[in-house]
Amino acid sequence: MKIKEIAEYVNGEISGNPETEILNVGKIETAGKNEITFISNPLYEKYFLTTGAGAVLVSKSFEIKEERKDIAVIKVQDPYLAFVSLLEVFNRDEAKDKYGVSGNCVIGNNSRLPDRIFIDDFVKIGDNCEIGEGTRILSGAVIQNGVIIGSGCTIGHNTVVHKECRIGNNVSIHSDTVIGSDGFGFAKQQDGSFKKILQTGIVVIEDDVEIGSSCTVDRATIGETRICRGVKLDNQIQIAHNVFIDEDTVIAAQVGIAGTTKIGKRCMIGGQAGIVGHITICDDVIIGAAVGVSKSITKPGMYTGYRAKPFREELKQEASIKYIEQLREEIKKLLTK
Amino acid sequence: MKIKEIAEYVNGEISGNPETEILNVGKIETAGKNEITFISNPLYEKYFLTTGAGAVLVSKSFEIKEERKDIAVIKVQDPYLAFVSLLEVFNRDEAKDKYGVSGNCVIGNNSRLPDRIFIDDFVKIGDNCEIGEGTRILSGAVIQNGVIIGSGCTIGHNTVVHKECRIGNNVSIHSDTVIGSDGFGFAKQQDGSFKKILQTGIVVIEDDVEIGSSCTVDRATIGETRICRGVKLDNQIQIAHNVFIDEDTVIAAQVGIAGTTKIGKRCMIGGQAGIVGHITICDDVIIGAAVGVSKSITKPGMYTGYRAKPFREELKQEASIKYIEQLREEIKKLLTK
Amino acid sequence: MKIKEIAEYVNGEISGNPETEILNVGKIETAGKNEITFISNPLYEKYFLTTGAGAVLVSKSFEIKEERKDIAVIKVQDPYLAFVSLLEVFNRDEAKDKYGVSGNCVIGNNSRLPDRIFIDDFVKIGDNCEIGEGTRILSGAVIQNGVIIGSGCTIGHNTVVHKECRIGNNVSIHSDTVIGSDGFGFAKQQDGSFKKILQTGIVVIEDDVEIGSSCTVDRATIGETRICRGVKLDNQIQIAHNVFIDEDTVIAAQVGIAGTTKIGKRCMIGGQAGIVGHITICDDVIIGAAVGVSKSITKPGMYTGYRAKPFREELKQEASIKYIEQLREEIKKLLTK
Repeated sequence: MKIKEIAEYVNGEISGNPETEILNVGKIETAGKNEITFISNPLYEKYFLTTGAGAVLVSKSFEIKEERKDIAVIKVQDPYLAFVSLLEVFNRDEAKDKYGVSGNCVIGNNSRLPDRIFIDDFVKIGDNCEIGEGTRILSGAVIQNGVIIGSGCTIGHNTVVHKECRIGNNVSIHSDTVIGSDGFGFAKQQDGSFKKILQTGIVVIEDDVEIGSSCTVDRATIGETRICRGVKLDNQIQIAHNVFIDEDTVIAAQVGIAGTTKIGKRCMIGGQAGIVGHITICDDVIIGAAVGVSKSITKPGMYTGYRAKPFREELKQEASIKYIEQLREEIKKLLTK
Repeated sequence: MKIKEIAEYVNGEISGNPETEILNVGKIETAGKNEITFISNPLYEKYFLTTGAGAVLVSKSFEIKEERKDIAVIKVQDPYLAFVSLLEVFNRDEAKDKYGVSGNCVIGNNSRLPDRIFIDDFVKIGDNCEIGEGTRILSGAVIQNGVIIGSGCTIGHNTVVHKECRIGNNVSIHSDTVIGSDGFGFAKQQDGSFKKILQTGIVVIEDDVEIGSSCTVDRATIGETRICRGVKLDNQIQIAHNVFIDEDTVIAAQVGIAGTTKIGKRCMIGGQAGIVGHITICDDVIIGAAVGVSKSITKPGMYTGYRAKPFREELKQEASIKYIEQLREEIKKLLTK
Repeated sequence: MKIKEIAEYVNGEISGNPETEILNVGKIETAGKNEITFISNPLYEKYFLTTGAGAVLVSKSFEIKEERKDIAVIKVQDPYLAFVSLLEVFNRDEAKDKYGVSGNCVIGNNSRLPDRIFIDDFVKIGDNCEIGEGTRILSGAVIQNGVIIGSGCTIGHNTVVHKECRIGNNVSIHSDTVIGSDGFGFAKQQDGSFKKILQTGIVVIEDDVEIGSSCTVDRATIGETRICRGVKLDNQIQIAHNVFIDEDTVIAAQVGIAGTTKIGKRCMIGGQAGIVGHITICDDVIIGAAVGVSKSITKPGMYTGYRAKPFREELKQEASIKYIEQLREEIKKLLTK
């Protein structure tokens, strides 16, 4: 792809040779002559003078302090987003254009499949399922009875979607994830043993959700566990029964959210954080990594600590601990005065 | 099902129309005319006046402050347990009554299967296995050589049971769980690299155990890792080699228990808690969410904190941290007096 | 195996009957007459007088305080390593000597397989893969297009290796693990929703690595995520995109390492620890269980605490918290004097 074609694609302005041929994208530290890279973070501006890349995407406000005649520069609105879209242009995965139904899969009765679909080897699809246009079900995946999956989805290898769950359009679920297995519900009996509470609800996943590998999203006891439009989940996340996660919330790996908790819109939850059951987190909350949240949060902002507190307050308290020894010394002196 | 039939089933006493037809169970806030709901927690008593449900299960001591002629009321010993049993009545899963052996599974030599069994597509069962009456092995599950599984069990999709492990009766293991893979054992060698220690033991799971999705229960180095009768494990739990978990203990999601540790009877362990290896937790211990236990616990009770302490003590210490800044101010004054 | 044969195998010196027949290894507390056990830790020396084992491996410096004529004693350099190697002698897994390609697997185009290989039922191998001599791919595993796997490896049941990842020689990956699924990368757009960043890199796993069950190792955004020679990972570990883990590092269960972080050689990381992204941990660092590391570590040694600090410092600070209440009392007295 020539520089002039790239500039047109990302709606940018060229300085340098528009005929330069670019074959891939690269990191600014390691990119070669036929690769294009980007500068978004000011910390990386210093690499402008040394990068081996053939072209660099920069922001419209980027100031070229020292001209480089050997490379092309493309000025764009947002160099990072432009780079991200070029990543896709140069890395088409042809396997994703393959459609068809394997001879080694099992499809139940009354399941409706469109013409353009990919069903891989050793996939099992139950009865009464409905799957949309262009969806891809990868080898080893299991779709139980009565599941509805929209169009343009990918269900990863060995991922399981339990009965009657509903998945929207353009949803990606990676490998070895379990959607809709039983919530953890037991009623204590008089002899101290536990009776299982049948989990009769479902999981609903709305459009444009991405779920990583080895996650577990439990079905509701009654009603539904819901993951709203645009939510992104990393790997190894546990979402318990009847949880509700609102739009565009992003959750990092190994987070656990206990039963019936409600998370607002546009929240960001750090890795290994834990949120107890039956609470509500409002919109626009940032929760740090490994933070424990045991009470509802009603104000947007950042929360940190083993027991979640507003970020500044927690930082101050944490810092104060190191003064205790000094205080002990001082008081000892005062007492013996 | 008519109210009079339900009352008989749950051994309750009716007030209201015994002929009312009930089709399902529901939550008190959302249930409709043909649904039955329950009041167990006093906080929910207020809904008695407003629920749209056709019938309500209440305790024998429940006082009806304001009569509702439009609904039926059934008084029972334990409204929650009655509700739980009705959940099952109204939500029979017919798929669970299907027996048979798929033409797309592989069964090894000398494995003994009863007549009434369900073996799903793409299941692999090794040699010399023994599986009990009415057990269900779901698609993608792997049962290695020499495994013994009792009657009435369910082995979930893509779940793996490694060689020679033993599973009792009425055990449910959900999807993508791994039973009996190698414990984590390596011996440091003189050059700093590690030599694997062969894990020769097994996992024993007793009757009435339920294990969630994406758990890992490692086989013993020598001897056995044992999960006793009635234990309930949520999702994504890690049980290391040679751990022993005694009867009726309940463990929430993402807990990790390190090697050779022994957990008592009727313990309750909160989500994301971690318990180090080679310690003993006595019976009737409650461990909070995300608590770290690094020493044996010898007294029943509740333990909390990043480093587990008795609940009240830990709460008090935690609360005391916020006084440090004030103490610093006061001492500054005293010192400058 | 006779004692004299064992002594030769472990290069040891016998006292007692060299003709004693040994059939297995055992734990010192429970071993029987035909089993051999070992004493390495001084705490176990007391069992020398009571063990029912037929033979005991001890160190060359072990002092026999009270003779036992009924058992054989073998003195060796390192009794634990000797025991570990005998574990293997007495527990040969014949299933591991079986080679061949199942009739129920799918192998893509242009994939090169050696003569001596084991490919189990329901395995899917994509196009253009290359797999080495003596490697075993267990049932349900998925190897995507363009993957290269060395010789003597085991890829566990239902484990997935995504496209173009490279695995060295003598690598063991246990069940339900996911290698090379997408890193967690999204760019925020002006409307608050997120655009996926294509993950174009790979995962490289060097020789002699062992990875437990239900781990997730993400592919790099650009470039590679690398796990170097001799690294050992326990179960349920999350390794994010572009992480680098250097040789002979050992990581316990449920640890999470965020994107682009670099871990040095010979580190030991305790269970449930979390390490944020974009930092560097130097060689020979020990990180305790459940420790949170949010800054680079540049000095070898042991680090503990909710926020990682050098071990002694953290212990002292932690211990100081219990004095706060006492300080409050003392200051109250001083102020009212």
